[in-house]
Amino acid sequence: MRQTLKKGLFITVEGIEGAGKTTNLNFIRSILEEGGEEVLMTREPGGTPMAEEVRELLLRPREETVSSTAELLLMFAARAQHLEQKIRPAIDRGVHVLSDRFTDATYAYQGGGRGLSWEMIHDLEKMVQADFKPDLTLLLRIDPEAGMARARKRGALDRFEQEKLEFYFRVQEGYMKRVAEDPGRFLVVDAQKSLEDVQATIAQELAAKLVS
Amino acid sequence: MRQTLKKGLFITVEGIEGAGKTTNLNFIRSILEEGGEEVLMTREPGGTPMAEEVRELLLRPREETVSSTAELLLMFAARAQHLEQKIRPAIDRGVHVLSDRFTDATYAYQGGGRGLSWEMIHDLEKMVQADFKPDLTLLLRIDPEAGMARARKRGALDRFEQEKLEFYFRVQEGYMKRVAEDPGRFLVVDAQKSLEDVQATIAQELAAKLVS
Repeated sequence: MRQTLKKGLFITVEGIEGAGKTTNLNFIRSILEEGGEEVLMTREPGGTPMAEEVRELLLRPREETVSSTAELLLMFAARAQHLEQKIRPAIDRGVHVLSDRFTDATYAYQGGGRGLSWEMIHDLEKMVQADFKPDLTLLLRIDPEAGMARARKRGALDRFEQEKLEFYFRVQEGYMKRVAEDPGRFLVVDAQKSLEDVQATIAQELAAKLVS
Repeated sequence: MRQTLKKGLFITVEGIEGAGKTTNLNFIRSILEEGGEEVLMTREPGGTPMAEEVRELLLRPREETVSSTAELLLMFAARAQHLEQKIRPAIDRGVHVLSDRFTDATYAYQGGGRGLSWEMIHDLEKMVQADFKPDLTLLLRIDPEAGMARARKRGALDRFEQEKLEFYFRVQEGYMKRVAEDPGRFLVVDAQKSLEDVQATIAQELAAKLVS
């Protein structure tokens, strides 16, 4: 008798700097692993040796003015590589993939933050992903001022972290626009609540997703 | 009285490896400079510090399988940067820009060679360039076998030069498809003729373009 392998879930965690993505990625991982599931942790931009090189190229502060369109295309180039070489193969093997950021971040940062056209990003999304999207996206909301204060404590700032505060307000708005477009996929959590509260909400939602 | 600055011409030289691009780029440059014109030489992928980093990332042979879509997006990312930071500003100052390859190479290599959809490349071209295109494109045609034999003599091969011969036949076909789409822009020269013949043809065409 032929066995059907259940596909892995694709779960992404989004939010501006200092929202607590790392802590909550590790929390989701531990829940899944305690349930005996196999998990692959990854991040964007990056996730494969070549895509990590693109990440480095994108994040490094530089003298040269960076064209917003170039930045957008680099994000999707790294994503095409990540998706083809790492994410899809894992999901097809039945492994859950947990990614620190994905395409919602591109809408938020390059669309909201940089002001690039939503339609152009949508066209690139179709080109690279066709209909592929996360099964669940955790969006951690934090006040941009509080988030940036946390991020600054972590040391040297990358090219994005050097942006002004108002950039982060536009990014946050970009994230909320994405939620409005596809509310069923998102779990929006107020990251300024206690960690206990945040994680109780996450655990509950995750349990529901794994059963369905 | 207000003076009108004449825009510089944008001239590109295309062809597979070993077709003699460098020799003829230098020849075009010398004709223009002898006429007292200012010329900026550049190349693709590359042309700015960041775009040159993308070039290195694209050309370096690597273990990892490179997604053709990622390759295509990296080409256009480098182009967006090159166009915005270097090509357009020079042309607007009245400087002629002479580039070793441009978008026709993307149609030829990623469309013809890799088999990516012509339409997808066209969509990216519109996104990055709108209606911007070269005023004149010199396409040097050489038999792929002869061209690759020349390229191999020059030393270590990059990720593209390591492709099989049939890849280069498809690239050549891609170039010819571009010529068919926009014949008025191209000067197609048989690069296997004597250099004297090749350069006489180039000089004649260039003189006509500069007058018009």
